[in-house]
Amino acid sequence: METEFLAWLRDHLPAHPCLRLGPGDDTALIDLGGKPDCLVTVDMITDQVDFHLDQSDPRLIGRKALAVNLSDIAAMAGRPLAAVIALALPRNRALELATELYLGMLPLAERHNVAIAGGDTNCWDGPLAVSVTLLGTVTERGPLRRSGARPGDWLLATGSFGGSILGRHFEFEPRIEEALLLNERYELHAGMDVSDGLSLDVSRMAEASGCGAMLRLETVPISPAAKTLARLRGDGVSSLDHALSDGEDFELILAASPDEARRMLRERPLGVPLSVVGEFVADAGLWQSLADGSRQPLSPRGWVH
Amino acid sequence: METEFLAWLRDHLPAHPCLRLGPGDDTALIDLGGKPDCLVTVDMITDQVDFHLDQSDPRLIGRKALAVNLSDIAAMAGRPLAAVIALALPRNRALELATELYLGMLPLAERHNVAIAGGDTNCWDGPLAVSVTLLGTVTERGPLRRSGARPGDWLLATGSFGGSILGRHFEFEPRIEEALLLNERYELHAGMDVSDGLSLDVSRMAEASGCGAMLRLETVPISPAAKTLARLRGDGVSSLDHALSDGEDFELILAASPDEARRMLRERPLGVPLSVVGEFVADAGLWQSLADGSRQPLSPRGWVH
Repeated sequence: METEFLAWLRDHLPAHPCLRLGPGDDTALIDLGGKPDCLVTVDMITDQVDFHLDQSDPRLIGRKALAVNLSDIAAMAGRPLAAVIALALPRNRALELATELYLGMLPLAERHNVAIAGGDTNCWDGPLAVSVTLLGTVTERGPLRRSGARPGDWLLATGSFGGSILGRHFEFEPRIEEALLLNERYELHAGMDVSDGLSLDVSRMAEASGCGAMLRLETVPISPAAKTLARLRGDGVSSLDHALSDGEDFELILAASPDEARRMLRERPLGVPLSVVGEFVADAGLWQSLADGSRQPLSPRGWVH
Repeated sequence: METEFLAWLRDHLPAHPCLRLGPGDDTALIDLGGKPDCLVTVDMITDQVDFHLDQSDPRLIGRKALAVNLSDIAAMAGRPLAAVIALALPRNRALELATELYLGMLPLAERHNVAIAGGDTNCWDGPLAVSVTLLGTVTERGPLRRSGARPGDWLLATGSFGGSILGRHFEFEPRIEEALLLNERYELHAGMDVSDGLSLDVSRMAEASGCGAMLRLETVPISPAAKTLARLRGDGVSSLDHALSDGEDFELILAASPDEARRMLRERPLGVPLSVVGEFVADAGLWQSLADGSRQPLSPRGWVH
């Protein structure tokens, strides 16, 4: 339904001189009338969709609510600055939940130097919903958009993929520092974070860039959790399938020229792995490379809202 | 519970150099590293608390979700600029609801020159929750805080009070233009918007200012809706009681010196009524004036979250 609704929004939201970037990228970019421009993003996480309150530590839920927004700021290679929090709290344990949620957010906020600027705290008869809005600023390099990939660019990814349901969806580290460092030292053409599944998000980045993308499946970094999940479930879904489609990895995918990508791989500037997992191609759509050098279509899979 | 939680927050939220104003006023104020500073506020409205989805036009709900945030920016005498929207939508009618909510917001956004910058749209099995985060900027006069009232200041109010449940809580006009105009032309000491009840919010403004406030009950402007409600209900609650405690009036209350207040009343710069309804006093607490010139305590009443 979100895809349909985004299409409706594109037709109905008027342009505005302050909107340097509106809906469609990982965050919006607002011209406040001075410098720097302001990045803003909102993500709401809800019970039984993004977490199960009856099975989860509320501190992890609070942490996740902030972390998913930090990942969006990372996707723009921005600096996070301040957050406001809106809570819809089940009436029977509202105060306890509110404090636990904040206690889960505060260490992550401190780690990324984010101010908690305020919020709105509501009790109701519904389930828990946590909405975080995060403000940030762009660096002098400007925002890292998802629409700048060019045919011939290499597709890079931080970290590894799949199996986040085993814990990583709560405990991931937003790639703020990695994005800032890469965007400062290298000429990145495009970037976004992987929230809905590697293959789905790669296809979105290609579409936003007006080109296609080809994954080299043998190079996709498969997380230990994806392997564990494939083994535990034993349902024929391979660890690679999990890596391609599970989502909530919150790793970065990036586009850069082959020369620039080679330089990154040589210099290894990050504390986390950085891999080349494919390339961008002129033909629209998502592809996988074959051993004989040809390619075939690959279905984007992941979490469709 | 919100009062308790705000006390907890005050003890647990660390200071941050970017936070010019944190929790405690109508909005936060963020230093983004340039000028002007950024006002940010979030309000979430939820089914069965702030509206009844089964009895209400979703466009009015969308309008209200934006309008309550505009009222917070008005309370700081700021200029609203851009909003992001997070929705938790009941699964069975998600797309229809999302579009109707936006169609309710868009005319009000246009009227106040606010860009809808993006959002997050979620489906779930819970009831409808609508969270709007609004960004704005302060004028060269700076933010109009609620903490600047001084003993001897007169207490002014725009519009009239009470009975908002009969329709005004959906259809009120946020006092953006009025606040900007008054703050530009006159020396205002403090201001806030009345969301929870006139007597309760006046007592909060006095407390934030470190003084007390005395209402002259005979001067409180009672709305036609408050009179209708008192008559319809016939439960002994007077129209004045409604005006003092109903809440969701979203009018401005302001503090200014007697000379400045007299100048406002003489010049009548607004298209809406502006009245003197009391004054600030040195003794803490809320008071009502008596005919013999003395005063007695008045209980703050209103919506306690």
